[in-house]
Amino acid sequence: MATHKLLLLPGDGIGVEVMEEVKGLMKWLEARGLASFAIEEDLVGGAAFDAHGEAISDETMARAQAADAIIFGAVGGPKWDKVSYDKRPEAGLLRLRKDLDLFANLRPAICYPALADSSSLKREIVEGLDILIVRELTGGTYFGEPKEIVTLENGQRRAVDTQVYTTSEIERIARVAFELGRLRKNRVHSAEKRNVMKSGLLWNQVVTALHAAEYSDVNLEHILADNCAMQLVRNPKQFDVLVTDNLFGDILSDAAAMLTGSLGMLPSASLGAEDPVTGKRKALYEPVHGSAPDISGKGLANPIAELASFGMALRYSLDLGDIADALDRAIARVLSQGFRTGDIAAPGEKTVGTVEMGQAVITAL
Amino acid sequence: MATHKLLLLPGDGIGVEVMEEVKGLMKWLEARGLASFAIEEDLVGGAAFDAHGEAISDETMARAQAADAIIFGAVGGPKWDKVSYDKRPEAGLLRLRKDLDLFANLRPAICYPALADSSSLKREIVEGLDILIVRELTGGTYFGEPKEIVTLENGQRRAVDTQVYTTSEIERIARVAFELGRLRKNRVHSAEKRNVMKSGLLWNQVVTALHAAEYSDVNLEHILADNCAMQLVRNPKQFDVLVTDNLFGDILSDAAAMLTGSLGMLPSASLGAEDPVTGKRKALYEPVHGSAPDISGKGLANPIAELASFGMALRYSLDLGDIADALDRAIARVLSQGFRTGDIAAPGEKTVGTVEMGQAVITAL
Ligand SMILES: CC(C)[C@H](C(=O)O)[C@@H](O)C(=O)O
Ligand SMILES: CC(C)[C@H](C(=O)O)[C@@H](O)C(=O)O
Repeated sequence: MATHKLLLLPGDGIGVEVMEEVKGLMKWLEARGLASFAIEEDLVGGAAFDAHGEAISDETMARAQAADAIIFGAVGGPKWDKVSYDKRPEAGLLRLRKDLDLFANLRPAICYPALADSSSLKREIVEGLDILIVRELTGGTYFGEPKEIVTLENGQRRAVDTQVYTTSEIERIARVAFELGRLRKNRVHSAEKRNVMKSGLLWNQVVTALHAAEYSDVNLEHILADNCAMQLVRNPKQFDVLVTDNLFGDILSDAAAMLTGSLGMLPSASLGAEDPVTGKRKALYEPVHGSAPDISGKGLANPIAELASFGMALRYSLDLGDIADALDRAIARVLSQGFRTGDIAAPGEKTVGTVEMGQAVITAL
Repeated sequence: MATHKLLLLPGDGIGVEVMEEVKGLMKWLEARGLASFAIEEDLVGGAAFDAHGEAISDETMARAQAADAIIFGAVGGPKWDKVSYDKRPEAGLLRLRKDLDLFANLRPAICYPALADSSSLKREIVEGLDILIVRELTGGTYFGEPKEIVTLENGQRRAVDTQVYTTSEIERIARVAFELGRLRKNRVHSAEKRNVMKSGLLWNQVVTALHAAEYSDVNLEHILADNCAMQLVRNPKQFDVLVTDNLFGDILSDAAAMLTGSLGMLPSASLGAEDPVTGKRKALYEPVHGSAPDISGKGLANPIAELASFGMALRYSLDLGDIADALDRAIARVLSQGFRTGDIAAPGEKTVGTVEMGQAVITAL
């Protein structure tokens, strides 16, 4: 049996708590002889800053480069609000994304039937919702240069961020979206602001050209990002795959996540390009939720998003799709059995803590 | 009685139809001796491009500069999809905003009780919703330079947009938000991405400093723009005034508008700075909805957003607040009487057209 090299980066806040449940699941899988892991664990975010003054160290980066998959928790918290911009907790995550060239961020927004009522939207609008957001993750405003604050002669300050995209950056993310579209309902929306941004114009042109050349069997629609935000609220089920840039993807995927009423449920995968020789790709898996300082340390966090992120790792990086399927079924079962953490409980409903929820998933497996 | 100089720019699509109802209302007010207008009408957007090859002409800009208020319809449509970037319909609107320095865009998102059920959100989440989004309108990614697409030596193309903000640009829009906050529930949220963008960092610092220096009586909260999108979906009533930059404001205000279930109802005002001598400010009023090519020319569009935009002009530019109040009451009455255009009708409900709805508002006045 192949041994899979995993790097666990729990990070800060509830990231640490939900990662414990993933570790429990890994042990369980190994004890049953279903998988074999070589596990390393390391610091990122505020925890790494506290330990060695950087949001991620070069040693941790080297381990990340060598791993088959990285399982990430969450970073940040009020404790590090005053830390300088380049050492802030988020810098650790951004360096991982950039240095490993994890350009394709897959964010499913799925509404579990058992949870449809915990959405702020009407049940009929979100029941059965299943959107896959494909967000470009290594370009755009996040990384473009110049990115600076300068003091002008008149004493004013002037801040600049630069949105940059090249043909090949757009093409490779659009390709991921079209390929995934073919495996789903064959419908891809591409969102940009071509009416205001030159990068939106280029985005639109490159997606259109790739579609015509190689994916004309896929149903493609272009949508302005502002209208996309509206349509996500109005009628989200019109979407299947939605491809967009780094910044729009950040906002639109968070809005989409909230439609499902269950942020604590949603995983994500950030993938690099396939190595032409080994066929492998670098990958990082993380829950969509953050470090939730308000509930951290209390054993209240929902571990399902982290468990489901590990499930995506099983599927996309470790070739253990069967176990991933079983895990997805176990999660659905636990929900229909009525297990609820605070984030997904209806008013008055009985809730369980992080550990109980993690155990329930293993039992259901 | 003062005569107010108005420039009407209906633009394209349903902009033309809904403007007719505003004209009807103006005539009615004049006939009753309640107000006196000197009205000019001109072309903008695709209509202007068709007439003289530009999305707005220098002559029209001169008229705009001279007007007490501009009443704008909507621009754009598939007919002009192939028009070059600098002549596209939106360029007319962007030039108006920039050349008149209309930096403060006020976008109320109000959920009328009679319409709460037409929202995709649960009634209890949106009933009574009353958010005022204060969007910076003349800076950021919309206007920063460089803004270009260049072809590289390897044949690839590279697109750049530049997000730029200076201290004074941030300060003046934050001031508008704090002042309006004081007139409302005294609560201001400021949204940016300081964890990723230098402009977000400066935004945060400038807002914080202004708050401490002059507005410490106002309840200020900073929120990351992605989390803000989530919170708008999860629990929009936590917001009172929300101040943010041009691009985030575009997306977040559209999401907020859709929460109300009644896009065809929402007006907006874009204001310049007060002239220190005359005390006047330049202003443009426009509905939040677009030109809606799918229903244009059919007499189906809801004129209320345009009528309410004119109402904002009465209040903010023409010192006719009493008439504005009466107009708001007339709109509420018409809704509770059951008048519905297609966009706000529940399934099966009887609908009226643009003209009938406009007439009903005048009758209720
Ligand atoms: C933590 C932060 C840097 C990050 C982002 O903005 O990309 C987060 O919001 C996300 O969406 O993964
Ligand atoms: C028409 C377009 C240029 C405009 C914008 O992006 O600002 C519109 O979406 C708006 O919000 O007023």
